[in-house]
Amino acid sequence: MFNIETYKDRRQRLKERMKDGILLFLGNNESPMNYPANVYPFRQDSTFLYFWGLDQPALAAVIDLDQDKEIIFGDDFSVDDIVWMGPQPKLHDLCAQVGVQTVKSSADLANFIFRALQKGRPIHFLPPYRHDNMIKLQEILGIRADYLKNYVSVPFIKAVVELRSVKSEEEIIEIEKALDITYQIHLEAMKLIRPGLKEYEISGVLKGKAMSLGGSLSFPMIFSVHGEILHNPHQLNLMEKGQLVVLDCGGEAPSHYAGDITRTLPVSGKFSEEQKAVYQAVLSAQTAAIEMIQPGIRFRDVHLEAAKVLTLGLKELGLMKGNIDDAVQAGAHALFFPHGLGHMMGLDVHDMEDLGEEYVGYDEHTKRSSQFGLANLRLARELKSGFVVTVEPGIYFIPQLIDLWQQEQKFKDFINYDKLESYRHFGGIRIEDDVLVTENGCRILGKLIPKRIEGIEAIMQK
Amino acid sequence: MFNIETYKDRRQRLKERMKDGILLFLGNNESPMNYPANVYPFRQDSTFLYFWGLDQPALAAVIDLDQDKEIIFGDDFSVDDIVWMGPQPKLHDLCAQVGVQTVKSSADLANFIFRALQKGRPIHFLPPYRHDNMIKLQEILGIRADYLKNYVSVPFIKAVVELRSVKSEEEIIEIEKALDITYQIHLEAMKLIRPGLKEYEISGVLKGKAMSLGGSLSFPMIFSVHGEILHNPHQLNLMEKGQLVVLDCGGEAPSHYAGDITRTLPVSGKFSEEQKAVYQAVLSAQTAAIEMIQPGIRFRDVHLEAAKVLTLGLKELGLMKGNIDDAVQAGAHALFFPHGLGHMMGLDVHDMEDLGEEYVGYDEHTKRSSQFGLANLRLARELKSGFVVTVEPGIYFIPQLIDLWQQEQKFKDFINYDKLESYRHFGGIRIEDDVLVTENGCRILGKLIPKRIEGIEAIMQK
Ligand SMILES: [Mn+2]
Ligand SMILES: [Mn+2]
Repeated sequence: MFNIETYKDRRQRLKERMKDGILLFLGNNESPMNYPANVYPFRQDSTFLYFWGLDQPALAAVIDLDQDKEIIFGDDFSVDDIVWMGPQPKLHDLCAQVGVQTVKSSADLANFIFRALQKGRPIHFLPPYRHDNMIKLQEILGIRADYLKNYVSVPFIKAVVELRSVKSEEEIIEIEKALDITYQIHLEAMKLIRPGLKEYEISGVLKGKAMSLGGSLSFPMIFSVHGEILHNPHQLNLMEKGQLVVLDCGGEAPSHYAGDITRTLPVSGKFSEEQKAVYQAVLSAQTAAIEMIQPGIRFRDVHLEAAKVLTLGLKELGLMKGNIDDAVQAGAHALFFPHGLGHMMGLDVHDMEDLGEEYVGYDEHTKRSSQFGLANLRLARELKSGFVVTVEPGIYFIPQLIDLWQQEQKFKDFINYDKLESYRHFGGIRIEDDVLVTENGCRILGKLIPKRIEGIEAIMQK
Repeated sequence: MFNIETYKDRRQRLKERMKDGILLFLGNNESPMNYPANVYPFRQDSTFLYFWGLDQPALAAVIDLDQDKEIIFGDDFSVDDIVWMGPQPKLHDLCAQVGVQTVKSSADLANFIFRALQKGRPIHFLPPYRHDNMIKLQEILGIRADYLKNYVSVPFIKAVVELRSVKSEEEIIEIEKALDITYQIHLEAMKLIRPGLKEYEISGVLKGKAMSLGGSLSFPMIFSVHGEILHNPHQLNLMEKGQLVVLDCGGEAPSHYAGDITRTLPVSGKFSEEQKAVYQAVLSAQTAAIEMIQPGIRFRDVHLEAAKVLTLGLKELGLMKGNIDDAVQAGAHALFFPHGLGHMMGLDVHDMEDLGEEYVGYDEHTKRSSQFGLANLRLARELKSGFVVTVEPGIYFIPQLIDLWQQEQKFKDFINYDKLESYRHFGGIRIEDDVLVTENGCRILGKLIPKRIEGIEAIMQK
């Protein structure tokens, strides 16, 4: 938890951006696995954490803009609870630590909202993503759960996005704590990966590592010898000599700030010559992209520059041909690089994704493209000092996509389908770092995790 | 996944127990952490797994009792999905593996139910515990999410409980796989625990261990030097010489069957004389309880016998006094042993807890007591061959509870409050094993994890 002034200041700046009505914040609740009392690890809502700092379930809060009041709704534990749970801090004391004096019972929230509705005052709420909170909103607002999305407050979303997008120094410190955990996971992976083991035998240890360091993971780890499968939660494959492992993972600090780093590692500890060539193309694209990052540049342009460097590399490999600018403008590179270059990162690994990418990654000046590949870009708008973004280009050989495109001879002036055949089982390579946009340029966050070929091989050979 | 005949047979026996109407089964969906796409590890609903075997999100199934039809509702992945997720098995083929020929789209479920409702046919459904499924039931049944609990089908609950309570040989094999993982976690703990480390430094490694063995945990691990705090998800304490660690954890096999074992371990590797005396009382109670287990005995009587052995031990320590039978009948022992002796275990660690303890642990012959302590007994009814139950007595010194009782001089004829003062910071001890009720008696499941004082010290001293 940060200092009391941090939370008061955040709420003050939020209030300055909103006109009137009630701002309603729902904290998260425990989330059941296979019966109500058997729950997943608790994760507080990030916007609730940002403005109210309290990291426990079953809370709500309001800011009454018209009367300039802040109230937290929640319940103290009963004496009976305390027999089972040990001594617990009083909610009133916790709220005081974040600058809130008024605490009411959970049961009072519905009444509070009802009275405001009766007076015709606007109730601003953010898009709910937990179904228990949808049911709660249905109960207190009288809007059917499946219609709630039509009633969310766009001004509230925009104000929250504006504030949360720019990270303070104390937030950067927390992100770097998450990256310390991430560093240790990656270094451990480089030591443990070897042929003959199943993916989960290593990834299990790595997940435990995050917890044994006092943190957790900011998202389900990707650990796969099939890096070309971009949405791949499974870790059942045998790791074999000659394969590459894509390890995309992020620690989460106790404060819940995220890290998100990808490395691609040779199972045997040494890259083949073919792997080196593709790897070098991805690394060059990542380096070029990071060098461009500074306030005022559009992230879409950084993405497109990375795509061009990738295309150059693919041309050198004989897999693409023709004019690079034309190929990228047409979207031909997306056969190999179908996802976006990166995303905002903060309290969420895809920061504020629950609030809508159209508000977080796009704005009135930058609209989403519908082109395959570019359409998946999560962040396109102009960067500002204080943004933290990921930079994660990749080259993948996706058999299903190659077949689809080859059948229609799509972009045949830019793609050498014949040459591609021998890369069919190559897999994929991605390299990702987390970058802070500074006043003059940018800074890669966290302790350096080796990404040069020689650096990785040196650690893995030991 | 078991053989096709297993699932067909389970559904057949369910049908024989139900009269008419539609049995509606909702599988679980992905569960969001901090935004919709960032999800917790998927956990299928256990009843869905039991009857339909399919371990993936976004499925539903019905048994139409009147027309003797079985239908699974779900959707295949699109070509676009497969580009991101790699080749996927067809739902029709998966369903065929569990003996179901009819597969319909998810979108057809609402229509199917609506037509049945129009014909006035009963729709049997189980108590929902996932809020997304509550919203789905609200949509398809027209019953407000918060009223659904009033409309669940008691005959359906009772039929499911009757079937799932008795474990087949192939289920026992799966439980023993979960116990293999549990064994390895406990043995690793005995090797790693030492003074000067934080709890999470070890518990993190242990959680990773479960995953690196290809499994997971059946519930959030308890790993605490404050064993007297019974509901304690935190692992932030420093482990110090002289303290005891309560480690209550269970592996979950890939099939999702559970294990659940508790050991209490000395941080230094050696128990003190005082700790040995309390430990021995708990171990004697556990041994006595296990020896009683056989078909036909009420688990409440096993619980009460364990309570008597604990009371005897507490008398020998000078902490209790008076007639043992009278003390236990009055509930005086519950100051030290406020929870129940155990619970059913199977696909859920507290098996079928979502269906209601009144149906799983109690029946028309055995009603729940309201006495403090005994009221918390999850399982009281008569045992049958094939039940798997946990046996987990404990002795705890809970300062908040001691203070409450001492203030009212509760059971002062049975409790020596003066003597208790020196045990105030003792902590707690619990010992738990998982037991199969056999034709003639019982069998402790899984490989033996040391629980005698000498056995534990021998491993921890190495
Ligand atoms: Mn990323
Ligand atoms: Mn248990």
